Amino acid sequence: MTELIQSWVASANTPDTDFPLNNLPYGVFSTEGGQPRCATAIGDMVLDLDALEEAGVLDFGGTLRTGGWNAFMALGHADWARLRATLMKLLGSGSEAETRLRPHLLSQADVTLHMPFAVTEYTDFYAGRHHAFNVGTMFRGPENALPPNWLHIPIGYNGRASSVIVSGTPVTRPNGQLKGPNDDAPRFGPSQRFDIELEMGAIVGQPSSGPISVAEAFENIFGYVLLNDWSARDIQAWEYQPLGPFQSKATATTISPWIVTAAALEPFRTMTPPREKPLLPYLAEPGPMLYDIALEVGLTPQGGAETVISRTNYNEMYYSAAQQLAHHTSSGCPMRVGDLLGSGTISGPEKGNRGSLLELSWGGKEPIEIDGGTRTFIEDGDTLTLRGAAWGNGYRIGFGPCTGTIISARDPGQRSD
Amino acid sequence: MTELIQSWVASANTPDTDFPLNNLPYGVFSTEGGQPRCATAIGDMVLDLDALEEAGVLDFGGTLRTGGWNAFMALGHADWARLRATLMKLLGSGSEAETRLRPHLLSQADVTLHMPFAVTEYTDFYAGRHHAFNVGTMFRGPENALPPNWLHIPIGYNGRASSVIVSGTPVTRPNGQLKGPNDDAPRFGPSQRFDIELEMGAIVGQPSSGPISVAEAFENIFGYVLLNDWSARDIQAWEYQPLGPFQSKATATTISPWIVTAAALEPFRTMTPPREKPLLPYLAEPGPMLYDIALEVGLTPQGGAETVISRTNYNEMYYSAAQQLAHHTSSGCPMRVGDLLGSGTISGPEKGNRGSLLELSWGGKEPIEIDGGTRTFIEDGDTLTLRGAAWGNGYRIGFGPCTGTIISARDPGQRSD
Repeated sequence: MTELIQSWVASANTPDTDFPLNNLPYGVFSTEGGQPRCATAIGDMVLDLDALEEAGVLDFGGTLRTGGWNAFMALGHADWARLRATLMKLLGSGSEAETRLRPHLLSQADVTLHMPFAVTEYTDFYAGRHHAFNVGTMFRGPENALPPNWLHIPIGYNGRASSVIVSGTPVTRPNGQLKGPNDDAPRFGPSQRFDIELEMGAIVGQPSSGPISVAEAFENIFGYVLLNDWSARDIQAWEYQPLGPFQSKATATTISPWIVTAAALEPFRTMTPPREKPLLPYLAEPGPMLYDIALEVGLTPQGGAETVISRTNYNEMYYSAAQQLAHHTSSGCPMRVGDLLGSGTISGPEKGNRGSLLELSWGGKEPIEIDGGTRTFIEDGDTLTLRGAAWGNGYRIGFGPCTGTIISARDPGQRSD
Repeated sequence: MTELIQSWVASANTPDTDFPLNNLPYGVFSTEGGQPRCATAIGDMVLDLDALEEAGVLDFGGTLRTGGWNAFMALGHADWARLRATLMKLLGSGSEAETRLRPHLLSQADVTLHMPFAVTEYTDFYAGRHHAFNVGTMFRGPENALPPNWLHIPIGYNGRASSVIVSGTPVTRPNGQLKGPNDDAPRFGPSQRFDIELEMGAIVGQPSSGPISVAEAFENIFGYVLLNDWSARDIQAWEYQPLGPFQSKATATTISPWIVTAAALEPFRTMTPPREKPLLPYLAEPGPMLYDIALEVGLTPQGGAETVISRTNYNEMYYSAAQQLAHHTSSGCPMRVGDLLGSGTISGPEKGNRGSLLELSWGGKEPIEIDGGTRTFIEDGDTLTLRGAAWGNGYRIGFGPCTGTIISARDPGQRSD
């Protein structure tokens, strides 16, 4: 299917929507005073799947009535396919179900979106070649830019699941230990180098108890979200050796609210780039495991207009999510439904393609132009928005925005929210 | 209370038990064919608290009937104190409740112990001064042994909750990427340098949404377990730069089966060692936050006798769990009930005090003596056992063993357990 599939929901039948019938992403919404409910997005609307299961229009063992997508994911592939096929049929142009479904359609403008799933654990990877090269160059010079293991290992580190939040949640500038090269001792205060990281998040939908192949890993991935791995570069610089980034990444990680399924992204599969060094067999990809998804980052200062500061594509990544997941299991590490894997910062080859302010401003040395001023790193009141879509023929598979506004740091002496 | 408290359970009234009435740790057991049930340990017995709540002897909102301790922990301090006080009264010598309770006592020999709680997230720290110095010396020489941030930051990194298992669970030697300094490229195969790490685990019993003080952090810790952070040193060496250890720590982390409460450890509180450099105010300890807990490690080769290879004490740590937890929240990171914090490898100043084989064998250069042979790193069939106790006057607060046997690696080409 590479054409737009027509729906009786009129707002879905346009190239300008993120949510044509081809998409059918899964999210969670509530209305005022109500509990979170499972839904799909179609055009400008949400379809209340909790209500449809209650009404007996859908039957997935009650999992659509749990206010999150973890229970449904755990059902496995046959049910993933059955729900998608059923919704295609119910929402398709000319469907007899229109009358029965209309009462369960709400305008997206009238609902609040929540975390679409409970993040079991969160791992962040580092698979952006240009990003790793840029950051390495800034810190070690171009000859030592890529660590020796980078072309062999899909490098990853465990992140903090408790800090993953849904698009629209404000983010408080962190305090932390800061120490410049000329300081005798660290001080504790607000980060001065708070940054974004444009990434894709892959959601594990089936558990595994031991090492799995790349092909199996691909099958276990339920879908994708946009992911912003907010990073405090100054806290990171002082803390990260030898055991990696910790507090610098623990303030927040924002994800977009709709899980776009691997099924919806199927037409957009693409190969990872050619290998610079051969990979070990356990990382071999049996086919195209990556996706062609156009991405952009917008920065809006408080009271100002948005500037798109970066445009790139997920297909820049050196490693796919399937390779990252296979590597994650290689030592025997168990994976669970709801595990979230961040791809690593996505940066293309040119300056306008970079997925972090660290790279865009080259460590603060080359401020970028925004509405009414310039930026090196994020300032209080700024709103950062990630957007993404896979572009088909007259339609796109969109993700909805992944946005957050930075509010000023707490008093460093304050304890106990 | 620094004397043994007498119970009508005779096996509790001896200096040779881990579980005098002074202790009252919390765990989970099952009998053949049965579901996991909450319990406490008393002498050689377990007391079935699920049954006591069912019978109305205890009333904690049904939380003791959930097969794990997370729900109970979430109730908070008043209920923690009430359960402990109630059990003291019910099990105390001369209690009228003896007849009513006896049917709910089982011999520890007749039950299986399970994970005592569901690990929400797991973070490992690095607070062992001697361990950090030893490891740093091995890799960088004594002048560069401690990283510049070590005396300022309770360094930590996120671990993998899915890999935390209960004492007695076998551990499969991991495969992983291995590359020696003279190799052109890495290979994939069984780790040749599989190791232990003797640690304490602190369990978070109350959530927090923003930065908390050391005093509040102390209050939020429900209790402690022994913790073995199994580590593949060769996988670690190749993977860990720049983002920290990942697969090398992801095979397994074993914990002892009984949560020893902060309340039981109260008489054993001690100060952290004197500061070598001043700490930032947010890490200041208002009193003794560390504990005097004697620890030992035993190694038993397959078919052989155990050798105690190390003896040390938790009071060697430079940072307490309360400081580590406060630091964990400093950037605004939310913490949740069931979060587990590993202290970091505990090594004392002498060779016989070291908490890892890496240190005991000095990177494999100085094999240690064991029954019937020597060891540098773990061999297949070896059983490693951690033990610990806080010693009072004629009694000890014990933890039960934290043990695991290493079984041989999977075929490196095998996928899908």
